[in-house]
Amino acid sequence: MNKRVFLGLMGILAAAAWAAAADPLPSWNDGAAKEAILQFVAGTTTEGSPDFVPPAERIAVFDNDGTLWAEQPMYFQGLFMLDRVKRMASQHPEWKEQEPFASLLKGDLKTAFAGGEAAVGRLLMTTHAGMTSEEFEKMAADWIAGARHPKTGRLLTEMVYQPMLELLAFLRANGFKTFIVSGGGMEFMRPWAERVYGIPPEQVIGSSIKTKFELRDGVPVLVRMPESDFVDDGPGKPVGIQMHIGRRPVAAFGNSDGDLAMLQWTAAGPGARLCLIVHHTDADREWAYDRESHAGRLDKGLDEAAARGWTVVDMKNDWKRVFVFEAEQLVRPDSGPQ
Amino acid sequence: MNKRVFLGLMGILAAAAWAAAADPLPSWNDGAAKEAILQFVAGTTTEGSPDFVPPAERIAVFDNDGTLWAEQPMYFQGLFMLDRVKRMASQHPEWKEQEPFASLLKGDLKTAFAGGEAAVGRLLMTTHAGMTSEEFEKMAADWIAGARHPKTGRLLTEMVYQPMLELLAFLRANGFKTFIVSGGGMEFMRPWAERVYGIPPEQVIGSSIKTKFELRDGVPVLVRMPESDFVDDGPGKPVGIQMHIGRRPVAAFGNSDGDLAMLQWTAAGPGARLCLIVHHTDADREWAYDRESHAGRLDKGLDEAAARGWTVVDMKNDWKRVFVFEAEQLVRPDSGPQ
Repeated sequence: MNKRVFLGLMGILAAAAWAAAADPLPSWNDGAAKEAILQFVAGTTTEGSPDFVPPAERIAVFDNDGTLWAEQPMYFQGLFMLDRVKRMASQHPEWKEQEPFASLLKGDLKTAFAGGEAAVGRLLMTTHAGMTSEEFEKMAADWIAGARHPKTGRLLTEMVYQPMLELLAFLRANGFKTFIVSGGGMEFMRPWAERVYGIPPEQVIGSSIKTKFELRDGVPVLVRMPESDFVDDGPGKPVGIQMHIGRRPVAAFGNSDGDLAMLQWTAAGPGARLCLIVHHTDADREWAYDRESHAGRLDKGLDEAAARGWTVVDMKNDWKRVFVFEAEQLVRPDSGPQ
Repeated sequence: MNKRVFLGLMGILAAAAWAAAADPLPSWNDGAAKEAILQFVAGTTTEGSPDFVPPAERIAVFDNDGTLWAEQPMYFQGLFMLDRVKRMASQHPEWKEQEPFASLLKGDLKTAFAGGEAAVGRLLMTTHAGMTSEEFEKMAADWIAGARHPKTGRLLTEMVYQPMLELLAFLRANGFKTFIVSGGGMEFMRPWAERVYGIPPEQVIGSSIKTKFELRDGVPVLVRMPESDFVDDGPGKPVGIQMHIGRRPVAAFGNSDGDLAMLQWTAAGPGARLCLIVHHTDADREWAYDRESHAGRLDKGLDEAAARGWTVVDMKNDWKRVFVFEAEQLVRPDSGPQ
């Protein structure tokens, strides 16, 4: 082959390699969801585009449970709570006769949680309050370092959705500031959100309990009090966003009715918006649930997404790979047998 | 002159120009305060230094009133409150006979504020609640665009300390993330803090009132409720820092006893720390006040700064220039007559 043909061929190969390397969302199958993300980012970051958003206003908010990591068979913070109760039980012999502790320690979760919100609240306050913020941070960090999923046996921090990690990175590479806005405990997420999601503590918004400043023998501490301060769920999410960010997001990502108000608040701003719901449709690789689920119920949100034309991710069909731990070759049916 | 001498001279001139241009704090006189700042930044940002702080942990928190802008003859948010009462008075004829409104409308502030915290609380709720967050943001932005200082006649946004703007910029240029942590209203500061200080809304922490999400004819709004939510002053400051940042600052800047807990919390962390108090000592260019002042009282803080070796800025002697509006040549005594 002559030199010109050779160089031409090299050029084509290089372009193909570049195109492959340049796909910012390799775990997303081509389809409406991926296209909506790519178009939104192109429009909001191209100067002169009618949809252009200045970098300072590129705020993207993500729910955590069911949106960035799994939430079945129960919210992972619930697993932390149960482990804490077991670990604390030896100091509390009285729990053998007190509900919800007694049932919980016998492994009878159904009876333990029969008390509803009051029972959960009591368990939360017992396990999440009464220590300093630094002690709690260490507790959560130590726990998550070894905590495994009851079904898959994987570390909980591996039960994270690979396509969403790619989306977070893609948005950040395009000047978006990414926030977590979760119903989960703010201080439960912060010790690991930076390592796992690349989201620093100051961009993690969540539910919280009251905290009090004290000098203990001259040493300042923040003491976690057994009293709810803020519930960052449902209509609390836009409130939490206003409190912590003070600017309306241009993109919001959720998976349940608890995210509906956040999506509505985001959608109602002027200019281009990306509102996206992760729909759990994959019983083989993950779980399939929506309108009837106890965790992450998605009912009104599904209707509103359809009515308003929001992007709904069909996990089964839109994602090549679900969890970060899945070997890539196993979940790339479009790349042929290997 | 021969070419070698010429080039040598050019080199010296260039180096001198570079050195002058490179002073990151030109409005600070040489002295202990400036030296402490320069040493802290050099130590925390030099890899291999025992004081090195990774970029993600370079959190610097600034009080606002009396630290970044003036606070005499009263907190500027108080001026906003008084203007709002006057503007709202025509809709409230009953105020002519109700305190604290009646005295306030007659210009008798002493009687109006005689009711103490309860009176101020009532004025605050009347003027700061009952509208949506977007309406309040516009109100604050419109007001600050034209609000002038009762003594200097300058725009309030010009009553900002030039040396502190330089300090903010210097820290940011060295990878620090700068936050406001103020007793003032979070939503009062956010509409202008980015333009004036380069601090985006998500890095403005302050006091707040409760906010509620509502759908009004299908349009989502956040409604400001007449109820205090969080007081970001005194022991509230470390709590606000934990809530919004979730990481202990390495540098804290204040000017009053309301900042003491924040300074203590910052100082108590491991490694290099910069704790700095702006001491108002300049009755000619600004105001001179400390232990007895009604606004920005600095009493315990002054004692603790001395005991702990914190940096105290003597405004009169440490600052060449106080306000951003001062012409530079007037306040550079060390540069000789011009």
